[in-house]
Amino acid sequence: MTKAAKHDASAVNGADITRGLAAYVVGSRFEDIPAEVRHEAVRSLINCIGCCVAGSRHETVDAAVAALKDLGATGDAVVLGRGERFDPMNATLINGISSAVLDFDATQFKRTNIHPSGPVLPPLLGYMTAHKVSGRDFLHAYILAIEVACRLANGVFGEVNPGWHVTGATGGIGAAAGIGKLLGLDTEKMVAAFGIAATQAGGLREMYGTMCKSFTPGRTAQNGYLAAMLAARGFDSAERGIEGDKGLAMVMTGRPAEHEILHDLGKQFEIMFNIYKPFACAIVSHAAIDGALQLRKAHSITVDKIAGVHLLVSPPTLALAGKREPRTGLESKFSVYQGVALALQYGDADPRRFEDSYAVDPALAALRALVTTDVDAKLAKDQAEVTITLTDGRVVKTRVEHAVGSLVNPMSDADLDDKFRGLCEEALPKDKIMKLLALCRDCERLPDASVIASAAAIDSK
Amino acid sequence: MTKAAKHDASAVNGADITRGLAAYVVGSRFEDIPAEVRHEAVRSLINCIGCCVAGSRHETVDAAVAALKDLGATGDAVVLGRGERFDPMNATLINGISSAVLDFDATQFKRTNIHPSGPVLPPLLGYMTAHKVSGRDFLHAYILAIEVACRLANGVFGEVNPGWHVTGATGGIGAAAGIGKLLGLDTEKMVAAFGIAATQAGGLREMYGTMCKSFTPGRTAQNGYLAAMLAARGFDSAERGIEGDKGLAMVMTGRPAEHEILHDLGKQFEIMFNIYKPFACAIVSHAAIDGALQLRKAHSITVDKIAGVHLLVSPPTLALAGKREPRTGLESKFSVYQGVALALQYGDADPRRFEDSYAVDPALAALRALVTTDVDAKLAKDQAEVTITLTDGRVVKTRVEHAVGSLVNPMSDADLDDKFRGLCEEALPKDKIMKLLALCRDCERLPDASVIASAAAIDSK
Repeated sequence: MTKAAKHDASAVNGADITRGLAAYVVGSRFEDIPAEVRHEAVRSLINCIGCCVAGSRHETVDAAVAALKDLGATGDAVVLGRGERFDPMNATLINGISSAVLDFDATQFKRTNIHPSGPVLPPLLGYMTAHKVSGRDFLHAYILAIEVACRLANGVFGEVNPGWHVTGATGGIGAAAGIGKLLGLDTEKMVAAFGIAATQAGGLREMYGTMCKSFTPGRTAQNGYLAAMLAARGFDSAERGIEGDKGLAMVMTGRPAEHEILHDLGKQFEIMFNIYKPFACAIVSHAAIDGALQLRKAHSITVDKIAGVHLLVSPPTLALAGKREPRTGLESKFSVYQGVALALQYGDADPRRFEDSYAVDPALAALRALVTTDVDAKLAKDQAEVTITLTDGRVVKTRVEHAVGSLVNPMSDADLDDKFRGLCEEALPKDKIMKLLALCRDCERLPDASVIASAAAIDSK
Repeated sequence: MTKAAKHDASAVNGADITRGLAAYVVGSRFEDIPAEVRHEAVRSLINCIGCCVAGSRHETVDAAVAALKDLGATGDAVVLGRGERFDPMNATLINGISSAVLDFDATQFKRTNIHPSGPVLPPLLGYMTAHKVSGRDFLHAYILAIEVACRLANGVFGEVNPGWHVTGATGGIGAAAGIGKLLGLDTEKMVAAFGIAATQAGGLREMYGTMCKSFTPGRTAQNGYLAAMLAARGFDSAERGIEGDKGLAMVMTGRPAEHEILHDLGKQFEIMFNIYKPFACAIVSHAAIDGALQLRKAHSITVDKIAGVHLLVSPPTLALAGKREPRTGLESKFSVYQGVALALQYGDADPRRFEDSYAVDPALAALRALVTTDVDAKLAKDQAEVTITLTDGRVVKTRVEHAVGSLVNPMSDADLDDKFRGLCEEALPKDKIMKLLALCRDCERLPDASVIASAAAIDSK
């Protein structure tokens, strides 16, 4: 990595966590961000925009849009993938919900499973509705926002969490960092913004499996956005909102925040631990799906030529995704049988394949019936062996050492582009999809990054 | 009390807490609310509106209003005590902040010190901007909202709280109950509204002493308002948002919610435990201030005739409010010396007396210097003895058994009217104050209760 920012050293040495993080964000310069970090941010941007566009068509989003209309919401800010426009704050809510509703957004794969983009990207897009921001500044703010959200997730919650939805618990402080950076807040005001965001932190795991799961990143995004806007106008807060005796860490977990949060700030970047799901289903079924896709492609297999499929999988794969006969789209996300059948039938396992109609499709049920499984305790959860017997008697086989999309074997840029096109294809015409993708890839060179959101609206200005 | 609602029995018997509370709110009829409860609700309404009008002039509110303007907020909903109008949701934020910024709103004096009106009243006022609601329905919703917020505060947090600002932690569910009642939600949707509010619950005690303390009731008010609006449009949530394994109670406190929350629903009303502060300073100094005011009035004492003042007070009084030489308005709230000096000089201890200029006034400093104190460990914190020696040699003395404003010796309706007039006098002309007070007192007979908010705007429609 390149040289670290000089200004962060003083912030780190013995300083408080809230202030240390704030000082880092305030002092960070775009030139200090290594090229590979900026590149990863563009990948993360593409993934999140794609998830928002696809997610925007979900009934969860319809319900939230209807409620905001009841409240009189109007404005100029883009709701990604839809025709409505709201004020920036309300657009932020919807875009945050859309980002998460397919369970397909990026995961930071360290000590927690935080999805950092959902809370931090929508406020930046909303802010740019009325303020001209260059692509560089936008990308910089996005990177810093993810940095803050993830460092806090790992250093406040780590592996032990009484039941908080981590994305909600620390994502808002990330959002405040991002908007605060665009606003040019000084350290005092950034500290205040972090505190105002911290006191709004929430999100209960009890909500998993309901619309409230994707509501949390949306509301959290608004919390952080509002926090920074308030701080800019002199609204004050506690000095030690994160590490104080009655601050975020102690009150939410009963443990102090780890000083590790400030370690190697500006040298190690959290976004480098983002992983992107290639398939819209349980992560433990990804290795088997990956193997099936590899064989399908290598041997030009069509489903009429398949006599049998055998999967050798890790124990968690069958424990978490062993549903033999899924009856709904949601259940089919937890069926490695259905995942492999979809892969063989369609060559993908995109979100639309996990709608109810696919779960009850007789052709897929017949294909599913050809799939047998065995568990091998020596396999890790991103490993699998897939064997396909063809009707002509041939047997083809592959072993997946690290499923595509894992940290060791990440989705390539081309994979992400494919995922993006798949995510957008129902909402946007092909030429708009290609334009939107090009704008994201070209983000650093945009004089005005608001064009990204505009290109992701159905009725673009 | 009058007959209890019949419908609540089935909700209570073995039912879940979230559903039990929701079913009670849905089934409650205005006729089931006893007259003394409705009367207390009017008292609470008057106190809260007065606090909002006075609080609206605080710099905390100025900062928040400026931030909302930056975000493009506009609309028809009244910001109490001010000239701006915002959409109902943003007006709710400001009114919630205003309610709390003087630390002068009602306290429910049971196991917690929740201030229930701040989160629940502003959404009701906001909602009525666009929806005609009778005074009876408004008052009914207000009573139910306080019921839910307070029962949860006592039964989830009780006496042991890791550091949550209780008003924020349960006030939003109360707000959802109030708006949900006006929307006519059924039990399923009311359960969802409570869950959506629960997953937004927050508020850290670390924020006490900063602008964020009064921000919490404002944001909480919005959380509950949004929750009910979403639920009305079919947004779903967990069935057991409060009592589930990863629900509000377990995640925020590590303890299960107490089933007591559902006890005597519809028979005992939480609002009956609301107390109203007569003086805008630490509650432990109220007995001494009360005694000083009594002597001043009984003996027509003017300050030029005072040779000395002696206070016999409880231990907490000096521990919490023993600041001998306050330098700022905020410090003077924690000085029983200044409180007694203000009472003797002005005959009141209103919020304006706790501005910085009074803290440094030489005349008050001279009066303060005449005050001596002794602690008597046998005195309770709402007890005091006040002895004044006059320049003519006379000695007058009184013993306060329960300070005015305590549950045993509550402020009378006339006292509350006086408090209200004092709170409003800087913001509103006298005739508007009297009209506003009359509307509140007459609330049950109003065909359209939105007139209350309109009468509390500076530039009323």
